[in-house]
Amino acid sequence: MLNINEQRLLSDLKELSEIGKTSAGGVNRPALSELDVETRNWFKTKATEAGLTIDQDGAGNLTATLPANNPDAKVLLAGSHLDSVPNGGRFDGPVGVLSALESLRTIKESDLDLPVHLRCISFTDEEGSWSSLIGSRAFIGEITAQDLTQVRGGVAAFDEALARIDCTRETVLQAKCDPSDYVGFVEVHIEQGTRLEQQQLNIGVVDEIVGIQWYWLKFLGEAAHSGTMPMADRKDANWGASLFVQRAKDIVKNDFFPGVLNCGQAQFKPGAFNIVPAEVELALELRHGSKEKLDQMEQIILDVAKSSAAEFELDLEVKPVSKVPPAPMSEHVISNIEKAASGLGLSNTRLMSFAGHDTQSLSAIMPASMFFVPSVNGISHNPKEFTHEEDVVNAGNVMLNSLINLAQNIT
Amino acid sequence: MLNINEQRLLSDLKELSEIGKTSAGGVNRPALSELDVETRNWFKTKATEAGLTIDQDGAGNLTATLPANNPDAKVLLAGSHLDSVPNGGRFDGPVGVLSALESLRTIKESDLDLPVHLRCISFTDEEGSWSSLIGSRAFIGEITAQDLTQVRGGVAAFDEALARIDCTRETVLQAKCDPSDYVGFVEVHIEQGTRLEQQQLNIGVVDEIVGIQWYWLKFLGEAAHSGTMPMADRKDANWGASLFVQRAKDIVKNDFFPGVLNCGQAQFKPGAFNIVPAEVELALELRHGSKEKLDQMEQIILDVAKSSAAEFELDLEVKPVSKVPPAPMSEHVISNIEKAASGLGLSNTRLMSFAGHDTQSLSAIMPASMFFVPSVNGISHNPKEFTHEEDVVNAGNVMLNSLINLAQNIT
Repeated sequence: MLNINEQRLLSDLKELSEIGKTSAGGVNRPALSELDVETRNWFKTKATEAGLTIDQDGAGNLTATLPANNPDAKVLLAGSHLDSVPNGGRFDGPVGVLSALESLRTIKESDLDLPVHLRCISFTDEEGSWSSLIGSRAFIGEITAQDLTQVRGGVAAFDEALARIDCTRETVLQAKCDPSDYVGFVEVHIEQGTRLEQQQLNIGVVDEIVGIQWYWLKFLGEAAHSGTMPMADRKDANWGASLFVQRAKDIVKNDFFPGVLNCGQAQFKPGAFNIVPAEVELALELRHGSKEKLDQMEQIILDVAKSSAAEFELDLEVKPVSKVPPAPMSEHVISNIEKAASGLGLSNTRLMSFAGHDTQSLSAIMPASMFFVPSVNGISHNPKEFTHEEDVVNAGNVMLNSLINLAQNIT
Repeated sequence: MLNINEQRLLSDLKELSEIGKTSAGGVNRPALSELDVETRNWFKTKATEAGLTIDQDGAGNLTATLPANNPDAKVLLAGSHLDSVPNGGRFDGPVGVLSALESLRTIKESDLDLPVHLRCISFTDEEGSWSSLIGSRAFIGEITAQDLTQVRGGVAAFDEALARIDCTRETVLQAKCDPSDYVGFVEVHIEQGTRLEQQQLNIGVVDEIVGIQWYWLKFLGEAAHSGTMPMADRKDANWGASLFVQRAKDIVKNDFFPGVLNCGQAQFKPGAFNIVPAEVELALELRHGSKEKLDQMEQIILDVAKSSAAEFELDLEVKPVSKVPPAPMSEHVISNIEKAASGLGLSNTRLMSFAGHDTQSLSAIMPASMFFVPSVNGISHNPKEFTHEEDVVNAGNVMLNSLINLAQNIT
């Protein structure tokens, strides 16, 4: 089996970590910022030096292509993203793009004649600085003009930021690829969790990416003077909201493992020490990899919200915010990743991805899967994010051999 | 027994309700606003027309005095406030000031020769638009230069507002009265609760005003990716905060009646759908009329906060914000109010005041008490606040006869 150039991959990662480096040891490269532009230029230089062909689509997704001898060949795609959350870590995204880049370099140097064009891709704004997965959603044609007006930070700032990479909202909407050109997609990413670490496994092959549902739950009671309104007569909106949180977390923990629930934000109104809260608006997030389980979870949890409100004579308003369905991964791609990992003597398992990734977008239009390497303590979106060098190297080698396997087994 | 001029009192209240009248039928007269200035001018005109002597102290507290024949007599004080919360009701405050004013007019007309100067007072900013009970706290000398720099809305705006009534922060600090000049204080106020209404009683004589303690409780967990961090490994700050709310409300309801607890505000950090909350800062308020019970409540509730945090491996930071001790009322004043009410054939009971009032300040330096008349449905700080005309008249008559009783029974 072929092996990547370990030192070159590690040195790339080290160099890249200098761009937007923070004092805490992380990186700060929000999509379309000046530092993101610097990152993009660095990537183009690296790929050009490797003799690859650089392109950018209308959404700013950057590609580096190693063409097959046959010009009519289809494309096998691999990659991830180079942007970061504000004050993020060095590994989330770059491990995927650099493993793909290193795989293409290794294959080019090996003179292996594969029946596909190999293309490394770095998607725009995976982290959603402006809007979640903009690049990969534009790539599959699942983004609308309206989505682009509802960006974080506002349209004017977004337009200005797009101009930095010679894009406009118009070009983003025209970035849709032709799926018939592609035979598959592979991504490698850090796990951002502790399952591999706890089981002391090298590789986790993703068989499902979770569906994610967001709601605002508004518990509605009655404002009252916190002194003169007796406890027994109050309609305290937070009594319902807090009972809901207690009940809902236990239900998900006990009955929907490995599904998860989060209530990460709440707004109290009127919001004073001496006024019984009339309204608590609670952010609710549900995640599960199985559509059936997620639907079941949604129904039970919303029922619990209703009954928790009713227990204190409160009203409940449920406002759906977004709904991303679970994405099953391609068995063909999964088995070729597993074959690569096992061939390299790396322990591996199948697992669900609890985070959204560009692979989720890609899986809608082509055979796709992704795999994880361990994150120390599962810490991510944090300067303390860390993945050991040997795991980064494993990412590169499994990517390399997955691509070779897939190229040699076009369905 | 003497009786007030019912129509004059009701007509005063009606006229006053026109100043700052809102479309919903309430009034909007925050302290030191232009509308508050208009209210003050209206009061001065009314009192002057009644032949009373007008004064204003350094804190803007307005008085109208009916002097005794003996110039060396002491002062018997009665009153309340004319400012309102934003978008408040017509009765909270005015019933007290106008009942006192009407009592002085009635006594003046009766040619009753009492051995005290009778003084009606309207205190500045009872509602705390700038800072709670500024007027009465300045009157008793319990306000500091620092308090006046920590006003809501900022010092610059406060200085500008004070200038509207020819005051400065300097003059506020010099407003302290000489307690030896006074023999007592009586206030009448709407109940802002439902106890009198539910028991179909006319008058509630206040024997204790609750102590009020405010804290910020900071539950501290760890921010984490809401997808990849398993439910079992989370340190969700709101799991502790919501458990605390559920436990604490039941403890106060079951073991500390008629004490009350409120959690009226909360701040989540970082505050996103997809991040496990690292921090929930919860506003906690405790009220009880008995110092012993309030101390016990404080200890038990803060222990519950600690154990609720510990249950989810969270830390807890307790930040005291303010602590107003319970104020026991003067038995001498109470019994003279009761004698007046019973003499008028009005049913009455003793009860605790769950709201702070100017009487709380006054009770620190002179014999003081207050009494309540019913509020329909207990609604207050709301345009829907309502007290029936016959209860307003009862307020006036009980005030009148309480003052006569007290004047004739100087201790």
